[in-house]
Amino acid sequence: MSNNTWQRFKKYFLHNATLGLSLDISRMPFPDDFLAKMEPAAQRAFADMAALEKGAIANPDEKRMVGHYWLRNATLAPTPELRDAIVTTLASIKDFAAKVHSGAIAAPGGAKFTQLLVVGIGGSALGPQLVNHALGRPGADKMTIHFFDNTDPDGIDYVLAALAGKLVETLVVVISKSGGTVETRNGQIEAAAAFRAAGLDYTKHFVAVTGADSKLDKTAVADRWLARFPMWDWVGGRTSELCAVGLLPAALQGIDIQAMLDGAAAMDAVTRQPVTARNPAALLALMWHHATRGRGEKDMVILPYKDRLLLFSRYLQQLVMESLGKELDLQGHVVNQGIAVYGNKGSTDQHAYVQQLREGVNNFFVTFIEVLKDRSAAASLEVEPGITAGDYLQGFYLGTRDALSEKDRPSITLTVPDVSPRTLGMLIALYERATGLYASLVGINAYHQPGVEAGKKAAGGVIALKQKLTAALAAAPGKPFTAESLAAQAGGSPELAFKILEHLAANGAVKKNAAASGNIFEATYSA
Amino acid sequence: MSNNTWQRFKKYFLHNATLGLSLDISRMPFPDDFLAKMEPAAQRAFADMAALEKGAIANPDEKRMVGHYWLRNATLAPTPELRDAIVTTLASIKDFAAKVHSGAIAAPGGAKFTQLLVVGIGGSALGPQLVNHALGRPGADKMTIHFFDNTDPDGIDYVLAALAGKLVETLVVVISKSGGTVETRNGQIEAAAAFRAAGLDYTKHFVAVTGADSKLDKTAVADRWLARFPMWDWVGGRTSELCAVGLLPAALQGIDIQAMLDGAAAMDAVTRQPVTARNPAALLALMWHHATRGRGEKDMVILPYKDRLLLFSRYLQQLVMESLGKELDLQGHVVNQGIAVYGNKGSTDQHAYVQQLREGVNNFFVTFIEVLKDRSAAASLEVEPGITAGDYLQGFYLGTRDALSEKDRPSITLTVPDVSPRTLGMLIALYERATGLYASLVGINAYHQPGVEAGKKAAGGVIALKQKLTAALAAAPGKPFTAESLAAQAGGSPELAFKILEHLAANGAVKKNAAASGNIFEATYSA
Repeated sequence: MSNNTWQRFKKYFLHNATLGLSLDISRMPFPDDFLAKMEPAAQRAFADMAALEKGAIANPDEKRMVGHYWLRNATLAPTPELRDAIVTTLASIKDFAAKVHSGAIAAPGGAKFTQLLVVGIGGSALGPQLVNHALGRPGADKMTIHFFDNTDPDGIDYVLAALAGKLVETLVVVISKSGGTVETRNGQIEAAAAFRAAGLDYTKHFVAVTGADSKLDKTAVADRWLARFPMWDWVGGRTSELCAVGLLPAALQGIDIQAMLDGAAAMDAVTRQPVTARNPAALLALMWHHATRGRGEKDMVILPYKDRLLLFSRYLQQLVMESLGKELDLQGHVVNQGIAVYGNKGSTDQHAYVQQLREGVNNFFVTFIEVLKDRSAAASLEVEPGITAGDYLQGFYLGTRDALSEKDRPSITLTVPDVSPRTLGMLIALYERATGLYASLVGINAYHQPGVEAGKKAAGGVIALKQKLTAALAAAPGKPFTAESLAAQAGGSPELAFKILEHLAANGAVKKNAAASGNIFEATYSA
Repeated sequence: MSNNTWQRFKKYFLHNATLGLSLDISRMPFPDDFLAKMEPAAQRAFADMAALEKGAIANPDEKRMVGHYWLRNATLAPTPELRDAIVTTLASIKDFAAKVHSGAIAAPGGAKFTQLLVVGIGGSALGPQLVNHALGRPGADKMTIHFFDNTDPDGIDYVLAALAGKLVETLVVVISKSGGTVETRNGQIEAAAAFRAAGLDYTKHFVAVTGADSKLDKTAVADRWLARFPMWDWVGGRTSELCAVGLLPAALQGIDIQAMLDGAAAMDAVTRQPVTARNPAALLALMWHHATRGRGEKDMVILPYKDRLLLFSRYLQQLVMESLGKELDLQGHVVNQGIAVYGNKGSTDQHAYVQQLREGVNNFFVTFIEVLKDRSAAASLEVEPGITAGDYLQGFYLGTRDALSEKDRPSITLTVPDVSPRTLGMLIALYERATGLYASLVGINAYHQPGVEAGKKAAGGVIALKQKLTAALAAAPGKPFTAESLAAQAGGSPELAFKILEHLAANGAVKKNAAASGNIFEATYSA
């Protein structure tokens, strides 16, 4: 490394002693006047964020405020009602978890709840999965956590197999903001059936986290579930880790949720300041802008050198891509924005795709996440005289960073002291704000997701077509139809009919006869 | 869907009844003359592959053959010695696993081995992790599998916590082809220390999978480990799942490894045929070429609609990116090839980044993987009248596919009957060959990884600098140095010295004094 590199490193190394966090942007090849040129845009982004935090309507599609920052500092919420809801809910989460841990809230028959099944998808699963993996202590957690995060029947069976014989001591938390997420509804029905099959009254094991008066909320009231916790319309799914969605599972697992909230609040306090050079969220957003030319031209590779942060890239994939991947800008122009995010962990990924990062297509920038503390135990084993496994972990990070720099592959490094509840809260808050600021820089709305409705609607069409196809088959028992002839009769796309019939045949729901020709499109199906 | 779509679907839907596998390329927007235009290149790729399978030297850096196809059909191996080595090793893996399962091979004291700890990284971990997640049966496997796949001390502690009290019945398989992979060596040392701390003779629990006469092999011989299995120089790490690297853990877990091999052999037989239109590996490679214009211009998003295939995208990330991410072509010209790969699973990812896929930056093509069989149980619960959770899983896949097509986002669909050992063997073999064929199409070598050495070498430099820094500190006890002054004295980059000292300070290995100025570069460190 040349002396120039060292000077640039010192110049662009931001250390915040209060947070214990550092951000190094020296290896992003922006010219020295870049930050000054971007300063007006950065100031506009700070102003947008300030308005958001004061309660501006930030999601015009759904006409709602965006208030995830209030969750960790309720005094910022724009009304006393909101402040009260935040404070009361947090207290009730802590109280509920304490009572579950003490056994004051227990399963019918008095068994302590030892297993926790979270039923949720997307924002209602990834946060709790991240927190569980990052902060869980195998064998020492208050509860062991499991997830239904999809509508895959075999995936559900896989989790139920791990819970075999333990449902009697299993608490189920069903999480759906809208209360109408089909995957979650299916998981809830499957879980309830498993409890019934075990001779248990599932309602005494089920808890709902959902919006007031949602379908799920009404079910929980009608069936007198064990408890209900609110989800508010001003918290988006991808920023819901620090409301009941994430806090309830974490508290039940035995994780210090107040420390998570405090970490996030501390990061918010730092990154709320409109001084770009001292604001790690603003600098991150500006680096994304530089690397991708404000148009998503490069992928964001997230490489934490820490096993516990394996899921952080997946968490950011959701946060960043769902927030920034937008067709239209705020003026309604087609912009097709976004930044693709991927990564797992170092040094493991060095044995997977760092070959391509160094030599291959130059379509990415890396964010390294360095964790200073190696392990809980005071002293580490020496794997060579004077050298620990943790020294090698750092060595591989620094070595890869240099190997990429040599080939003009840019990288950012974020250094954190440890993987603790406080640090995880900081990281979540940092990326939430960086994402929001970046959206302002490129003039898009980070707080809606208009593109996911089309797929859901089309899925509804597939389900409706399945009903029509099976009805048509049932109306002509034993009569063979090709996919094309059945589609013509029932009405619908022959391609979808073919796909649906193949799926039904594989699961024994319809009978399939292969054609003598061997042409799969001449196969026939019958009831 | 228009009638045109249905005609194109039928035209470009390849179904192989023997494999039970279908490939649909109809939603890739290639013109009708594309395949004909590419046919000469496809034939050259088939010829390259034929030469490879006959034993050509395919890795010029290391002057070795590439023979992973022989592993599932030993009769194809170019010499009787190789054939014998493959057959004998497979028999010894099966025999060893049977004896472990029966208790004929047991821990000292007679305890049956119930836990399996795999120590490996990259190609020596991802394959076993994929197979475990795809084919494991919680509660019904012969052994429960754990992994050390990094040199993270805390990650090691995390796994050891899950094994607390069970080391007495734990078998450890240490996997390193070269026998010199540092992360694996460190894991081995940490694991051995854990056994010693539990009062156990680790050598009676350890098994090596490594090249003959490697450093690891010599250790295993000298310390009389329980067993040794060979890894051959003609099997690359990223294609090693079907040699001892993957087969031994799978067999120990109780997975039908012969079915995996048979599935791979069946796929090889189909994809060896130089008839492009009937060859799913060739069609995949050609679609990658079309989508990325043969230059990696688009990312490959892998979306299996099946929980058990969650890790398949990560497995392919390694296989594809390490094989194709190359600076130079076969003539030595700088080409910076590669294709970035990411993805997790559907429908879960619809709640994460499908927003960006539909609306955002159009820099990808999707490969959907559809699994026809929903679950092992014959009948599925109805979540609505006549509708199962599996119907919804398919509905979301089809809905998302249509939602992407509407916005001119291209997709491929691969349909497989189930997630079984046979199917997984097929999928592995399919992508191995598609990757090899694509490398021929773009004129690069898929079988080396010259770009990973630089990072390893630089990491060695970091370790050496750490030694110099701690020696310099120890030589002047109590004397405070800034990072810059210590680097000047010990010789080395001040930036690296700063990073190393911060890490040492965080782990109590050196004493740090913050500067009154608050400038982190004025902090001092002492022994």
